[in-house]
Amino acid sequence: MDSQYVIGIDVGGQTTKMGVVDARGTVLAQTVIRTDTHSEVEEYVKELAAALKKIIAEAGVEGNIRGIGVGAPNGNYYTGNIENAVNLVWGGSRTIPFASLLKESMNGMPVALTNDANAAAVGEMTYGAARGMKNFIMITLGTGVGSGIVINGEVVYGHDGFAGELGHVCAVRNNGRACNCGKTGCLETYASATGVARTAREWLEMSDEPSLLRNLENITSKDVYEAAKDGDTLALKIFDYTGKILGRSFADFIAFSAPEAIVLFGGLARAKEFLLAPMEEAMNANVLPLWRGKVKLVFSQLKESDAAILGASALAWEL
Amino acid sequence: MDSQYVIGIDVGGQTTKMGVVDARGTVLAQTVIRTDTHSEVEEYVKELAAALKKIIAEAGVEGNIRGIGVGAPNGNYYTGNIENAVNLVWGGSRTIPFASLLKESMNGMPVALTNDANAAAVGEMTYGAARGMKNFIMITLGTGVGSGIVINGEVVYGHDGFAGELGHVCAVRNNGRACNCGKTGCLETYASATGVARTAREWLEMSDEPSLLRNLENITSKDVYEAAKDGDTLALKIFDYTGKILGRSFADFIAFSAPEAIVLFGGLARAKEFLLAPMEEAMNANVLPLWRGKVKLVFSQLKESDAAILGASALAWEL
Repeated sequence: MDSQYVIGIDVGGQTTKMGVVDARGTVLAQTVIRTDTHSEVEEYVKELAAALKKIIAEAGVEGNIRGIGVGAPNGNYYTGNIENAVNLVWGGSRTIPFASLLKESMNGMPVALTNDANAAAVGEMTYGAARGMKNFIMITLGTGVGSGIVINGEVVYGHDGFAGELGHVCAVRNNGRACNCGKTGCLETYASATGVARTAREWLEMSDEPSLLRNLENITSKDVYEAAKDGDTLALKIFDYTGKILGRSFADFIAFSAPEAIVLFGGLARAKEFLLAPMEEAMNANVLPLWRGKVKLVFSQLKESDAAILGASALAWEL
Repeated sequence: MDSQYVIGIDVGGQTTKMGVVDARGTVLAQTVIRTDTHSEVEEYVKELAAALKKIIAEAGVEGNIRGIGVGAPNGNYYTGNIENAVNLVWGGSRTIPFASLLKESMNGMPVALTNDANAAAVGEMTYGAARGMKNFIMITLGTGVGSGIVINGEVVYGHDGFAGELGHVCAVRNNGRACNCGKTGCLETYASATGVARTAREWLEMSDEPSLLRNLENITSKDVYEAAKDGDTLALKIFDYTGKILGRSFADFIAFSAPEAIVLFGGLARAKEFLLAPMEEAMNANVLPLWRGKVKLVFSQLKESDAAILGASALAWEL
């Protein structure tokens, strides 16, 4: 009989979440370790493997695991390497053979690795809002903007394994904001959680408009969300602007791959009530007439606490 | 034994080119008919079938044809229909079951249909500059800007069969030029043959800069090309600007599908000597660092008179 369970691991800059998952997307056992306690990846992988063995035992599924799926920043599906991941203490400007290190520590268990947004796309296709869809674009709105593109039921990895960096298409051509990547005007400098906070700070500076946000230090996107819920006009305008920037970028994405839907996920996607209308309006105003009103904007259906694990685990079904 | 020959048909607004092609991409026999003499598609298809039978006989390959590939404006690969093709006299705002009409007129011979840019991509992959490539983007610079996207060795058709309309991504967000599609700022309003002529007219109007182009009525992109060859500063600046607009759009395309190369084809691509440097520079200045200097810009290697037929014919090998 085929093995019935998979492991999903979500490697973040601070913490690494992992879980044992069944074919229906139920997380049977899960745990978390720090990502940033060891500066050497070997030490980190040793701790990770120990944690995995513990939850496999806890779920009572020893010997019945098909494989391990890993979502990690700068993860390359083709090579199984993590390349130049500056957000990981053991990453830096190096190439780390992560999949093979983990496989070795797990007695040869097969390991598939990709970046977090691609993992989210596979998760959504396997267990979530994109079930049954063959062509969609996953957009993750977190600290940055990530993307996973699915065409004909398969994630697009491109020539080198790094396709789908839609957070770095140009959203604002002239005088655009500086991005961590070294360019200016990238979509994620406007449409991520960080981007929303930047807009708030910029607009508070530029006008005297009264706003609940004026009293705050170190404004976050969550503050803007709370203020919008309280009816704060400036906060509402910030979401309107953010949605518009996203929607018009989506129009260009549609011209590329003609997806059935764009699926949104991540912390900022929680502001759906404020983002959806301007996003949809800008998307339809900027897309070719043949797609007007035809491409769905849907939000992730995965339980947020499980989503990262589920996404990564879904990769392992394809092993 | 498998049939050894295919037919390629390129349906343009004014003329329809067709040829019998062998596996090496040699055109054994070819002919042309008018596309625009009949207002009813049935009459046109009847004439087309007669012309095909004639070249099949001429090439002496009766009974040895694998199938027919057709490149046509607004051709839908999934349905075999031509939809809302306003440039075809028998097209208009209708859906024409072109593949099945042609199949019927050709005694059941299999017919594959797609748009001209997708056909060009398949042609380039089968016989041309993209041989051996699994991931590339074909950009056709003609009257408009078309595109054919290849991922994992397959043309991307998307959810509805119309993917790859990169001529209509936004190149200029504010005060962009009006496009035939109803939007403004589309790439093709700047980077097509028509776009180059528009730039020339606009710039001549806006300044008093002396230029060979001042003496001309109804400036075409060819005039601009000739002037550039004669060292005309304004004409050179026009190509510089056009190349820059293309290059920065390419940077966004790369973020989508991480292609090995972008392949350029079409009348305007003949101005390679003036377009290549600014295009390459703008592409590398606007792309994520991980792709800087890594994505090739290549020009079609197909003989221009045969290219449209070859592209369409290549589709038929997959039947």
